[in-house]
Amino acid sequence: MIDLHLIGIGTGNPDHLTREAIKALNAADLILLPRKGAEKSDLADLRRQICAEVLERPVQVVEFDLPRRATDQPYLGAVADWHDDIAQCWRTQIEEHAPQGGHVALMVWGDPSLYDSSLRIAERLGAAGLDLRVHVVPGITSLQVLTAAHAIPLNKLAAPVTITTGRRLREAGWPEGAQTLAVMLDSGGAFSVLDPEGLHIWWGAYLGMAEQVLIHGALADVAAEIIDARTQLRAQHGWIMDIYLLQQIEHP
Amino acid sequence: MIDLHLIGIGTGNPDHLTREAIKALNAADLILLPRKGAEKSDLADLRRQICAEVLERPVQVVEFDLPRRATDQPYLGAVADWHDDIAQCWRTQIEEHAPQGGHVALMVWGDPSLYDSSLRIAERLGAAGLDLRVHVVPGITSLQVLTAAHAIPLNKLAAPVTITTGRRLREAGWPEGAQTLAVMLDSGGAFSVLDPEGLHIWWGAYLGMAEQVLIHGALADVAAEIIDARTQLRAQHGWIMDIYLLQQIEHP
Ligand SMILES: C[S@@+](CC[C@H](N)C(=O)[O-])C[C@H]1O[C@@H](n2cnc3c(N)ncnc32)[C@H](O)[C@@H]1O
Ligand SMILES: C[S@@+](CC[C@H](N)C(=O)[O-])C[C@H]1O[C@@H](n2cnc3c(N)ncnc32)[C@H](O)[C@@H]1O
Repeated sequence: MIDLHLIGIGTGNPDHLTREAIKALNAADLILLPRKGAEKSDLADLRRQICAEVLERPVQVVEFDLPRRATDQPYLGAVADWHDDIAQCWRTQIEEHAPQGGHVALMVWGDPSLYDSSLRIAERLGAAGLDLRVHVVPGITSLQVLTAAHAIPLNKLAAPVTITTGRRLREAGWPEGAQTLAVMLDSGGAFSVLDPEGLHIWWGAYLGMAEQVLIHGALADVAAEIIDARTQLRAQHGWIMDIYLLQQIEHP
Repeated sequence: MIDLHLIGIGTGNPDHLTREAIKALNAADLILLPRKGAEKSDLADLRRQICAEVLERPVQVVEFDLPRRATDQPYLGAVADWHDDIAQCWRTQIEEHAPQGGHVALMVWGDPSLYDSSLRIAERLGAAGLDLRVHVVPGITSLQVLTAAHAIPLNKLAAPVTITTGRRLREAGWPEGAQTLAVMLDSGGAFSVLDPEGLHIWWGAYLGMAEQVLIHGALADVAAEIIDARTQLRAQHGWIMDIYLLQQIEHP
């Protein structure tokens, strides 16, 4: 029997860790630490740093390389295949390093519930016959770090909020009836499909990290600035993660 | 000059606290600890417990009573008046207990960005002329504890999510185009306005606490069970907080 713990670690600042996450890491028999390829080695470094800072007993930490997603196939199909490959990869590591079963921990960026594949991959392991119990430890999301950094509420008073992706915003535009829209996983400037009139944007990149950059203002005023900053920062660091909140302003 | 720190503390389990929250509490000159009336004294107790567990130096902790919201007025107007009263109340405490300025901390349930009034109240203090800088420390939300407890993703693969209130669900029904809907601040059973056909629900009450209760299933099957459980639990504990996720199921 494997107890698999998907542990949210926040988004780049080891101080995002909760006491629950620290306890779960210390209670593990095995910590799997995936590497995602050279351009995101900062992210593997953060996981190593977290282990070094919070482990109070010797826990077996095993690093391994993740397969890459095919980029020459339709998106959803490619993602499904990729999740199959990752599940196989986890399984190999678990069978090799925890052959008797036990508590296996994975550090998940942000919160495991939000645009993350770990729960879907874990489900594949169960479906493939591994005797598995899945536990989730919530972690601070990039959306929370965005609103905290700008010191703004997510919702307008008693009003709804929609969270979506850049891809979806490009395809479907502003969701019917939404006043507040949070956009993640944008390959860059999906807000350009919108009429900026009456919209305000709060944007953030590398949230929680030393490299953090924030821009906010009327979308009409700052859209070009954000697109430029994104291009420049991406070139400078070799990778970028950014997120933004769009809101309709009542009294412009 | 006052540095006001709104510190998310998660939703009832002191282990939801992040390292950042613990550092911010320890760095405070004054911690304001609001009481909300007898029926929610469990919540003030939790804040006291957090102080007792995490403070490593003597920090001045001041308890005070919050005014109550008028329930005989239209909702939004009553809320605005109530926020004015709370702002006045914070100001009195700050001027009395931190007359020279300094770092003032408030422990906010869950995350300060999500259906919480602290940021709007702090804005009133600034507008009223207090020399104020507002800092936010993100905290684990009840929505994250819900998805973690059920070990489910919030979003369907690459799909959007809407977060709304019970009041809004009753007034406006299922939001156009939504596949996943999270509902907070429901006075009870707002999902009854929906056609349950094809909908699945994941419900949780007292999340993160010893009293935690979870129910999930096809909405048609468990709606009555949830409404009954809610009534019973509320009578038993004297108060209840619950939240749920609704999702359209593709292959019922
Ligand atoms: C695969 S999703 C993972 C989200 C993560 N589970 C969370 O809870 O934030 C990656 C997206 O999250 C956002 N993101 C994650 N970390 C970020 C950071 N430190 N700064 C800005 N955006 C971030 C970006 O929109 C990015 O495209
Ligand atoms: C005023 S809002 C505050 C939300 C909080 N800021 C957060 O981040 O979760 C209160 C609502 O949050 C939800 N909630 C908060 N704590 C909860 C808990 N421990 N269990 C279930 N629901 C909770 C309920 O829907 C409740 O009506």
